[in-house]
Amino acid sequence: MAVRHYTLDFNLSAPADLPATVRGLQSIFQEQEMTETVHDTEGHGYLATFIGKNGRFAVLRVHSRGLVTFDLQCCDDDDMAQIDNLLNTLEKKLKALLHGNIRRSKRLPALVRGGKVDKYWPTADGRLVEYDIDEVVYEEDSAYQNIKILHSRQFGNILILNGDVNLAESDLAYTQAIMGSGKERYAGKEVLILGGGDGGILCEVVKLKPKMVTMVEIDQLVIEGCRKHMRKTCGNVLDNLKGDCYEILVEDCVPILKKFAEEGRTFDYVINDLTAVPISTAPEEDSTWEFLRLILDLSIKVLRPTGKYFTQGNCVNLTEALSQYEEQLGKLSCKVDFSKEVVCVPSYMELWVFYTIWKK
Amino acid sequence: MAVRHYTLDFNLSAPADLPATVRGLQSIFQEQEMTETVHDTEGHGYLATFIGKNGRFAVLRVHSRGLVTFDLQCCDDDDMAQIDNLLNTLEKKLKALLHGNIRRSKRLPALVRGGKVDKYWPTADGRLVEYDIDEVVYEEDSAYQNIKILHSRQFGNILILNGDVNLAESDLAYTQAIMGSGKERYAGKEVLILGGGDGGILCEVVKLKPKMVTMVEIDQLVIEGCRKHMRKTCGNVLDNLKGDCYEILVEDCVPILKKFAEEGRTFDYVINDLTAVPISTAPEEDSTWEFLRLILDLSIKVLRPTGKYFTQGNCVNLTEALSQYEEQLGKLSCKVDFSKEVVCVPSYMELWVFYTIWKK
Repeated sequence: MAVRHYTLDFNLSAPADLPATVRGLQSIFQEQEMTETVHDTEGHGYLATFIGKNGRFAVLRVHSRGLVTFDLQCCDDDDMAQIDNLLNTLEKKLKALLHGNIRRSKRLPALVRGGKVDKYWPTADGRLVEYDIDEVVYEEDSAYQNIKILHSRQFGNILILNGDVNLAESDLAYTQAIMGSGKERYAGKEVLILGGGDGGILCEVVKLKPKMVTMVEIDQLVIEGCRKHMRKTCGNVLDNLKGDCYEILVEDCVPILKKFAEEGRTFDYVINDLTAVPISTAPEEDSTWEFLRLILDLSIKVLRPTGKYFTQGNCVNLTEALSQYEEQLGKLSCKVDFSKEVVCVPSYMELWVFYTIWKK
Repeated sequence: MAVRHYTLDFNLSAPADLPATVRGLQSIFQEQEMTETVHDTEGHGYLATFIGKNGRFAVLRVHSRGLVTFDLQCCDDDDMAQIDNLLNTLEKKLKALLHGNIRRSKRLPALVRGGKVDKYWPTADGRLVEYDIDEVVYEEDSAYQNIKILHSRQFGNILILNGDVNLAESDLAYTQAIMGSGKERYAGKEVLILGGGDGGILCEVVKLKPKMVTMVEIDQLVIEGCRKHMRKTCGNVLDNLKGDCYEILVEDCVPILKKFAEEGRTFDYVINDLTAVPISTAPEEDSTWEFLRLILDLSIKVLRPTGKYFTQGNCVNLTEALSQYEEQLGKLSCKVDFSKEVVCVPSYMELWVFYTIWKK
């Protein structure tokens, strides 16, 4: 079961005529056979709750400082025509009762609570957004994280890791941005991808005839889910862990990076597509920032002098997190410079910052 | 004033042990000095409401079919640390009480109700989305519509007409799409823009050295607001109604189109940037579709045989509205063909369909 939660709010220019408003609405609730309870708010305005048939529950609040809020909760198998009718009647009546005193009214789309499919995946900057998700395609708890692939009508399948929207099939813009926005020549080059279990980067790089791509993804279950359900993103590159010009290592990238650094193995491009808070089998560092810096330091070590390091940063609104990241770049054992680009990734519902980093 | 409305929901695998759950939470509400009212739901589960200090109001529902919902409303000047603490405590306690029985839990970003700035502008397909809006820059009721220009931290200023997000300063992608996605040569051409009061199309077309652009926008107040507050979109083209190669007519486009058609005046490009439900000073037609078809018919009449007509369609999810529009295209007095393209317009939070139409 799920609950549909409707809200209807009025901002007033002046406090409402409370007795008139309450009296004016009474007949509507009576017609709906809703049982009223008036609560003592200890001086914080008028508050009444109503219980109706089919478990319907409503709250009417008239705040002393010019705000009227109305809530209606009903089960999702309730009669929606009746519910719409009740809301329409109330809205019309309240507009008549508060006539001339309304600065703004707002009736939002119903919040669906506890629905079979969860459609609400807040943005990185903490905003509430509803997706057009109609199906859970894949869901697993791996040793590392919760993995979901959900189907969006407009974006195709969306990979969600620990509740964060990672990539949708619509998001070629993400993959292009983290590969340098079409300004790089990958032909004949050696490339290291950190993370990237959705296969998007690997798929696009392989098309450009690199010499060799090494991808290090920790989570076998991400690869399996995406191989099956994100084929618009990964094509067939995840069907085998080895191809003509690529190899996928299903391992923690930190020991691999250390090994490469020790061996003096280097790359023309290092693309860091790890999750925002990277996962490790054995994090040695105290804080996320130190761990991020360790990966950065190791990545720069395995980068050729003329090489480039690409990574996604954060949403454009989290300016503090972006500054902190840039601060870390100043603390690396090898001096680096960087540039950044703001890109619209369709399924993110927020603009995203991508970094290009190179040795000074 | 505004109300912050928090929700915290649990989907259960099996019905909850009601007495244990309710008893387990009691101490939390008592500590918070919240007064409880238990309601008779006539067999629709457990429902209790709580009134606390500062006008705080909470609702706990334990539905019989495995869903627990909790609501907390508080004023936006309440102590947010206390509120967070209450929610954290409740979430932790509920997770402990329902241990092993939780399929999913969800705590959404608070809904801000009646806030000074309205951040919720639902998508065309009816989804709830919160924008990062921090300021009302311009608001007017013209003779035709409600005009708002709101500032978004990431998208810049956003033009909202009658509650519909029209265009943000971030949305060059929209303007490029409705101009044919860079595949057209405007140099030396004659162009007619219907609507387009934000100046985006005019600004971009003028850069391409057309012979003459005629823009017909009904609403002087849209032009004024955008001239002042959407300069990233319109540049300086709205500073004067006449330029070297353009003219803006502040008029209803229907009589103008009729006049052009009578005079035999034709254009290489007609770009229809009218709002979804176009505004007219004197609509003659019975239905929106008939009115849309009238504009289409007239537009095709003033289009040269080799010309192209561009317009925005709708969000990609409203497949029925898109089909109906395409049906209209089959009913025009002059036979036409069309193609469509799906484009990501950053501030829309949904993919949008654009049409190119030409004479067969």
